[in-house]
Amino acid sequence: SLDSLLYSANKYLVCFAVGVVTALAAFAVNLAVENISGFKFWATLTIMERGDVLGSYLAYTAMNAALVGASVAITLYVGPAAAGSGIADVKAYLNGVDVPHIFHFNTLAAKVLGAIGSVAGGLAIGKEGPFVHAGAAIAAIISQGGSGSARLPWMRNFWNDRDRYDMVACGTAAGVAAAFRSPVGGVLFALEEMTSWWKNQMLWLAFFTTAVVSVAIRVLMKACSANGCGFFGSGGFIYFEIQEGQDTYEFFELLPMLLLGVLGGLMGSGFIVMNTRLSEWRRRNLAPLGRRGRLLEGLAISVLTSTLSFVVPLMVACTACPPGSEGACPRTDDLHSGNFVKFGCRHVGGRGYYNDLATLFFNTQDDAIRNLFASKTKREYTVAALFTFTTIFYFLAALTYGIFAPTGLFVPSILCGAAYGRLVGIFVADMHPGHYIDEGTYALLGAASFLGGAMRMTVCTCVLLLELTNNLALLPLIMLVLLVAKAVGDGTGIKPIYEVQMEIKGLPFLQPQPEAFMRHITAKECCGRPPVTFNRVEKVRSIVETLRSNGHNGFPVLHRGPDGERLICGVVLRQQLLTLLGSGSRSMQPSPTVNDSSSRAALSYSVPEFSKPMSDPAEGSADGVLAPGALGEDVLDLFLDLGPFLNTSYHVVQEDAPLSKVYQLLRTLGLRHICVVPRAHEVVGMITRADLLPDALEKRYSGMPGHYTTD
Amino acid sequence: SLDSLLYSANKYLVCFAVGVVTALAAFAVNLAVENISGFKFWATLTIMERGDVLGSYLAYTAMNAALVGASVAITLYVGPAAAGSGIADVKAYLNGVDVPHIFHFNTLAAKVLGAIGSVAGGLAIGKEGPFVHAGAAIAAIISQGGSGSARLPWMRNFWNDRDRYDMVACGTAAGVAAAFRSPVGGVLFALEEMTSWWKNQMLWLAFFTTAVVSVAIRVLMKACSANGCGFFGSGGFIYFEIQEGQDTYEFFELLPMLLLGVLGGLMGSGFIVMNTRLSEWRRRNLAPLGRRGRLLEGLAISVLTSTLSFVVPLMVACTACPPGSEGACPRTDDLHSGNFVKFGCRHVGGRGYYNDLATLFFNTQDDAIRNLFASKTKREYTVAALFTFTTIFYFLAALTYGIFAPTGLFVPSILCGAAYGRLVGIFVADMHPGHYIDEGTYALLGAASFLGGAMRMTVCTCVLLLELTNNLALLPLIMLVLLVAKAVGDGTGIKPIYEVQMEIKGLPFLQPQPEAFMRHITAKECCGRPPVTFNRVEKVRSIVETLRSNGHNGFPVLHRGPDGERLICGVVLRQQLLTLLGSGSRSMQPSPTVNDSSSRAALSYSVPEFSKPMSDPAEGSADGVLAPGALGEDVLDLFLDLGPFLNTSYHVVQEDAPLSKVYQLLRTLGLRHICVVPRAHEVVGMITRADLLPDALEKRYSGMPGHYTTD
Repeated sequence: SLDSLLYSANKYLVCFAVGVVTALAAFAVNLAVENISGFKFWATLTIMERGDVLGSYLAYTAMNAALVGASVAITLYVGPAAAGSGIADVKAYLNGVDVPHIFHFNTLAAKVLGAIGSVAGGLAIGKEGPFVHAGAAIAAIISQGGSGSARLPWMRNFWNDRDRYDMVACGTAAGVAAAFRSPVGGVLFALEEMTSWWKNQMLWLAFFTTAVVSVAIRVLMKACSANGCGFFGSGGFIYFEIQEGQDTYEFFELLPMLLLGVLGGLMGSGFIVMNTRLSEWRRRNLAPLGRRGRLLEGLAISVLTSTLSFVVPLMVACTACPPGSEGACPRTDDLHSGNFVKFGCRHVGGRGYYNDLATLFFNTQDDAIRNLFASKTKREYTVAALFTFTTIFYFLAALTYGIFAPTGLFVPSILCGAAYGRLVGIFVADMHPGHYIDEGTYALLGAASFLGGAMRMTVCTCVLLLELTNNLALLPLIMLVLLVAKAVGDGTGIKPIYEVQMEIKGLPFLQPQPEAFMRHITAKECCGRPPVTFNRVEKVRSIVETLRSNGHNGFPVLHRGPDGERLICGVVLRQQLLTLLGSGSRSMQPSPTVNDSSSRAALSYSVPEFSKPMSDPAEGSADGVLAPGALGEDVLDLFLDLGPFLNTSYHVVQEDAPLSKVYQLLRTLGLRHICVVPRAHEVVGMITRADLLPDALEKRYSGMPGHYTTD
Repeated sequence: SLDSLLYSANKYLVCFAVGVVTALAAFAVNLAVENISGFKFWATLTIMERGDVLGSYLAYTAMNAALVGASVAITLYVGPAAAGSGIADVKAYLNGVDVPHIFHFNTLAAKVLGAIGSVAGGLAIGKEGPFVHAGAAIAAIISQGGSGSARLPWMRNFWNDRDRYDMVACGTAAGVAAAFRSPVGGVLFALEEMTSWWKNQMLWLAFFTTAVVSVAIRVLMKACSANGCGFFGSGGFIYFEIQEGQDTYEFFELLPMLLLGVLGGLMGSGFIVMNTRLSEWRRRNLAPLGRRGRLLEGLAISVLTSTLSFVVPLMVACTACPPGSEGACPRTDDLHSGNFVKFGCRHVGGRGYYNDLATLFFNTQDDAIRNLFASKTKREYTVAALFTFTTIFYFLAALTYGIFAPTGLFVPSILCGAAYGRLVGIFVADMHPGHYIDEGTYALLGAASFLGGAMRMTVCTCVLLLELTNNLALLPLIMLVLLVAKAVGDGTGIKPIYEVQMEIKGLPFLQPQPEAFMRHITAKECCGRPPVTFNRVEKVRSIVETLRSNGHNGFPVLHRGPDGERLICGVVLRQQLLTLLGSGSRSMQPSPTVNDSSSRAALSYSVPEFSKPMSDPAEGSADGVLAPGALGEDVLDLFLDLGPFLNTSYHVVQEDAPLSKVYQLLRTLGLRHICVVPRAHEVVGMITRADLLPDALEKRYSGMPGHYTTD
């Protein structure tokens, strides 16, 4: 039919728009970060070349502090919900939690601008996590025609939970695809990590979205590389082609790789513990100080980061350029990215020298990762440099991931893992001098191990790394390392980082499976308090009072016959009642009896009117029509026939059903509430698979008169 | 806890075993096919070189007929359920249909042996579909400890629907991974195409299985290439590294690529229609002839295929070798695979000649695909040769896919698509002579388009082709072509091939979403006939009679109090009753009242005892304990207290629930039946997400006495 065709076409249209806008946003952030950090590094290194080390340090620190300060300020004053990576919030939303403000336009703006500031400001955090949140917000805003209660009505058909859910899921896929230029990885990320329900149809829609992102970024980058976009062009999107790397491996290498997995599991879990402790400390000691406290915290961490990344390389001796690297080592002054950063090292005896620690610290993170993953650059980094970098960066990242600015965890994880992976690679190469061991391969596996230990995602991490490196030969090794890292991480009993964050934020995330003890609790015991119900025709005054006195979202409606018999008619939602009350006396009637006028009034409403606007604050439900005096006394004395507005196909469980079954029902179907009813006294019938085959049904009912239209 | 740890470890153990065995089976099939066809082609071409064209033809045809005849005979007499690709059957099983025999050991044996015969016999079908079925059967047999009712008890904990389901899903992933050496593609295939329910945990398990497959095949191939395994080594697993191919594309190329998509959608749908018509014809005209008819059909198709593939190349003029290809063209006699097959062509004027059609027909399909995908071999194939090959192969494949032998559709689709893709590539190159257009890229896109048009899988096809070609740069193009091909295919109104096959086989597949007209039917109307119920304590005689008189699988059990009040106690399954009856008087009692002895008797049963063995024929339920005289008269007069065996947490819907909701409930939760009960008269309470948070629940119930242990 035309309607459903139009609806499908609109879905693709929205996905196309989401893909293009997400790609544009990601591209803009990359461009800004590359140009700002490029300028920053250029200025710092230029001042240094003049011999003014202190001036260089001060300039570097001041620029970083200004950028981070701006980022924190924007987050604080424009969109506080943009703080952190946002992955936990979006994941909670996709689990069914109504997290306020996360898809608001202000949040999106703060996320994008803040990410530029905090990443360009040299903090030990990444922009990939914020991209995921931004992608989700873009999808929500586009599909709903706006973020507040004043929505553009152009896509009214998407004003419902299911469509918004689908679009947000596609948005997260688009975000990952934009961050890593990894379309398949984006889809798998949405599938494995973010969503709690998944339909096959969504797989395709998400893939379409990520394909659009991927093509759009390709076009944008081509335009940029042709016309020049400032410093941008060398780096930006992490995308390391290491096809020339090691794609054969010897049997003895499995042991160090296993070790990497164990290390990743332990370090990832340690990271989570440290970060959790710090979050709790922040909550106790920083939150009371208000905005100023968070701003000062950001500045302090920025100064600490700048100092460490500037002073520590200075304290390290210069390394002689490897033979045969003339021209590339040390890096010439007109290059703004790449290996072999000079950082004050001088030519001695006709031979170039470079600072290996500065090569890691004085590059954008994308470039630093590329340097670490680089194959065929044996011994570019000394053991001491890698060890120092890993240690500093690990603790800095744990400290930083939690400031009040958009922060991501992917890139620090990859960077940290790559550093200690390369360290392990050096040891392996030392122990087996006769074999070709590529340190770059170990860096890649190290990155996989840290991601596996901290995030515990496996399939999508694996595909992300595959797409990043464009080398399928490494797949079994990456899988092995991820398996071990995840197993070790899970074995420590510490939950994955995003789940811990949801707990800290108090977001009620429902795991896919119920706990074992729920088998011993019945549904009736779980409800506890008696339900708040309405009569079919209810006085407006009592509706207002009931809505004010509790926070429930669904209310069973009972029909009470004249002879005392009762029957559940259906369930009415709070939002429906608020809409009905808000539209004044349109649907109200003076008499407390059921009559025709109410169903006629119901026809004047359209379904999207009853949908809940997405970013309205939860506490807002106490205002509006529920505010004292919002409704006149004359309206309060009218009656509302809820009959035409009821959901009559509500889900029920029997009172003695074990809670584990109820849990599964609610979780699998994505319900928000479920009615508990007494045990039935008789069975009307059984419905089996065979009863539900459309062809047989169609045959059975097409001959019947009346309302059985089967087309 | 130790138990659940052991259970998880066992799951991985089973998956490991499934991976290794599937890899071994796939490897054995490849080895056999490569060696047999290698010998066949060698013998044919050697006889031909001697000038004996007729002898060559006869030898070729006879060898093919023998192989195909053996394949059909094995399928007919050993495992009739092995006929066809098996993907439709496994997909139906994973949708909840109890397809008899598909996981039986005989079926597996016939599948593996038959696939060797029919593929080595030169038919226009592939071995990849059968691999999927074989992988699923291997997983089922290993996880259940056997395929019949005599199961090894080593993994009794997996004797239940859910675990078997998970394992079979992993098995299908392993099959695809083994067929295409594509671990991620295998997982996505299981997820997108095969399973109807998917949990996150399974993603990881399936990935683990495919990783094992991938490593095992790598090890096996290494061993083979070191020691030599006959003709094997050059070919076998399709795996085309076309990294050196075209990975940039011009804007004007999008139009021919779109065209390829449209062509693929139309040709794929046409294929389905032809194949369906042929299947119906077979059902009407061949099935009555019995086994001999199917055997003759196989032989006839084999002779036809041999004749066409031998005679048509003979009628084509030889092509001069391209300049610079000396040594490689024509292929030397000691090479058994590769481009430029001589096929009777002679050197003329010092220049080599080859037969381009024979290059496609006289190679294994894997090699032919490799030849078609090959880049930088411009104009190896003439337009006429490609056109002829496409036409012949297309109709041959539609005719062959349906014979009574293991047959797959992947490779014919890829081959056919690659041929017309290359054709389009030639035209594009002709029209834009100044640009670098690689015909191999178009062959790849053509393959994608045919797969998209016939199977309508998108994400997994895309990843499969990516992993096959190891070239990520082509991703957006493949996606575009797949999108268009799927859209065009869906637009024709013809269902995907596997769904059509399920319809032909009468397998009741439930689509993910209900049809729109189901909203207008209530649950009560759908049940129709009154349910067959039992009393809690029921006479054995009446149980036996009830089970004999209908085919229901679930029976509500009612408790009838002395004062006439009734209550549903729960649901008992047919298999439970069969087990109870089969174990004699162990759980029976002489009196029709509820007493302690029955619950004591129930303790002597373990849960796996009640599980249904997987491959027992559906009609077998009429035999066994239900056969007349199987139970003595004394036993028939005893009583059975069903109380301890009931499922008390059965799912219910209210009688006026719309059927669409019931459909969703049953389909989403994977239920086999659902009880319809009268509308409730009161609400006991409401359960919301917040009530189900484990921590809050634990706090609430840990203080309570008695059975609330929350660990």
